[in-house]
Amino acid sequence: MSGYEFIQKASKIMCIGRNYAAHIKELNNTTPKQPFFFLKPTSSVITPLSNNIKPAAKSITQNILKTGSLVTSVPTVLHKGNPSPIYLPRGIKTHHEIEIALIMKEKLSNVPVEECENLDLFKCIKGVCISLDLTARNLQDEAKKKGLPWSIGKGFDTFCPLGPMVPVEELDHSLNFQKSFKFKLFVNGQLRQDGDSTLMLTSFSKILQHISNVMVLEQNDIVLTGTPSGVGELHPGDVLKLEMSFGDKKLSDVEFVCEQRPGPYTFKET
Amino acid sequence: MSGYEFIQKASKIMCIGRNYAAHIKELNNTTPKQPFFFLKPTSSVITPLSNNIKPAAKSITQNILKTGSLVTSVPTVLHKGNPSPIYLPRGIKTHHEIEIALIMKEKLSNVPVEECENLDLFKCIKGVCISLDLTARNLQDEAKKKGLPWSIGKGFDTFCPLGPMVPVEELDHSLNFQKSFKFKLFVNGQLRQDGDSTLMLTSFSKILQHISNVMVLEQNDIVLTGTPSGVGELHPGDVLKLEMSFGDKKLSDVEFVCEQRPGPYTFKET
Repeated sequence: MSGYEFIQKASKIMCIGRNYAAHIKELNNTTPKQPFFFLKPTSSVITPLSNNIKPAAKSITQNILKTGSLVTSVPTVLHKGNPSPIYLPRGIKTHHEIEIALIMKEKLSNVPVEECENLDLFKCIKGVCISLDLTARNLQDEAKKKGLPWSIGKGFDTFCPLGPMVPVEELDHSLNFQKSFKFKLFVNGQLRQDGDSTLMLTSFSKILQHISNVMVLEQNDIVLTGTPSGVGELHPGDVLKLEMSFGDKKLSDVEFVCEQRPGPYTFKET
Repeated sequence: MSGYEFIQKASKIMCIGRNYAAHIKELNNTTPKQPFFFLKPTSSVITPLSNNIKPAAKSITQNILKTGSLVTSVPTVLHKGNPSPIYLPRGIKTHHEIEIALIMKEKLSNVPVEECENLDLFKCIKGVCISLDLTARNLQDEAKKKGLPWSIGKGFDTFCPLGPMVPVEELDHSLNFQKSFKFKLFVNGQLRQDGDSTLMLTSFSKILQHISNVMVLEQNDIVLTGTPSGVGELHPGDVLKLEMSFGDKKLSDVEFVCEQRPGPYTFKET
């Protein structure tokens, strides 16, 4: 069990927008009247290069991006993770957004709002991992202005770095699930984002309930639960360190490095 | 081979927006300076109820939506398709958008624009199917106005009806791939959309080239290529008939029916 097996099986990745007041303020966004969410493609998932995880024989993203244009099919080997640097596309202001991610155990559909409090997170998820919802901020700003979708701005290859899954069994069940997570992002040794799950505007269980009314949540689906304030731009050479703890227990400590994205992409107006 | 095996293996669904001039005009949209695209979740895929395809033992969508709230995990059986009605969410103006869908054979990444003409569609795709990019129009209109993502408006369960895959080997290779598709949507016997692939603003190969510069296209990924004019609202009880031909050969002729979506969802402002 490498801690990355869930990735191979994930059929979709959903992210809640604007879930921390200070982050809403820093981007001058309005607070939504109800939660909203968006999709990231599973092809954007990467895992750390080191951290005791041996790189898979064929790392898809690296393989693809480095060989250039017309790449013939290689088997998708994700159970050992997809170790890769973060690739920063040319002309894009790539912003880091650290988030706690839930990995689904139960299939959830059409959960009524009044059953929300009965959703036992310790039971309906398989585990948690630390994650980055990388965002092409200038492209997203253009999309917001012109009423275009966010999929490109959120979905570039390597834009969903994930740490290994921590099984829910390893969390202290005597603690309050909602109130016990702390998470931090350091860039080149400097603390940039300092997260605390007590500050979420929409709780974990309300997020799952809400999504289930639109899209069925399937086993191994991944749900990113929003970013605290402190988002900012990444540059080639930057080293990111992501930490997450539950109560006093440290759950994750992973590193990612940034490189310029190879290939022909350059930002242009849509 | 049921014609639906590709669905089980698809890791993502991408749709090109605004690819037919008359459709851009009917929604008063602006013509994009370059193509843009968005994601639909694989969980939104359904297949026709009849058409010689036996319903799978456990049809996910039906199973989920009908049993209501907290549904425990059932195995995902999609190789026989996922036969289901189209579910129309309460308070949502669900619009039909018929589109030609390509199913990838080759993995494509970072294809340079100058290699676009060398992309042989007969080689880099596995097949085609007729599809509907169902859209929650009033929710999408709100998203466009407020600069919010389109994922909800495009991603409700059952919002991606697909016909069976027609393998590319069954198409006449002496014809021009770009110029030989015709497709029609009838609602309750009335012709609503009448499509012709010669009218696409961005060609099939340019679409694939463009996406590959942002997201790797993987084997079995599904690419919807835009809708012609004539989009309109669906109502419970409506019967949709989708036809597609290549040259003189009829490729598809499938039916979908509409029902009210069960469960608690009702449109509210975000």
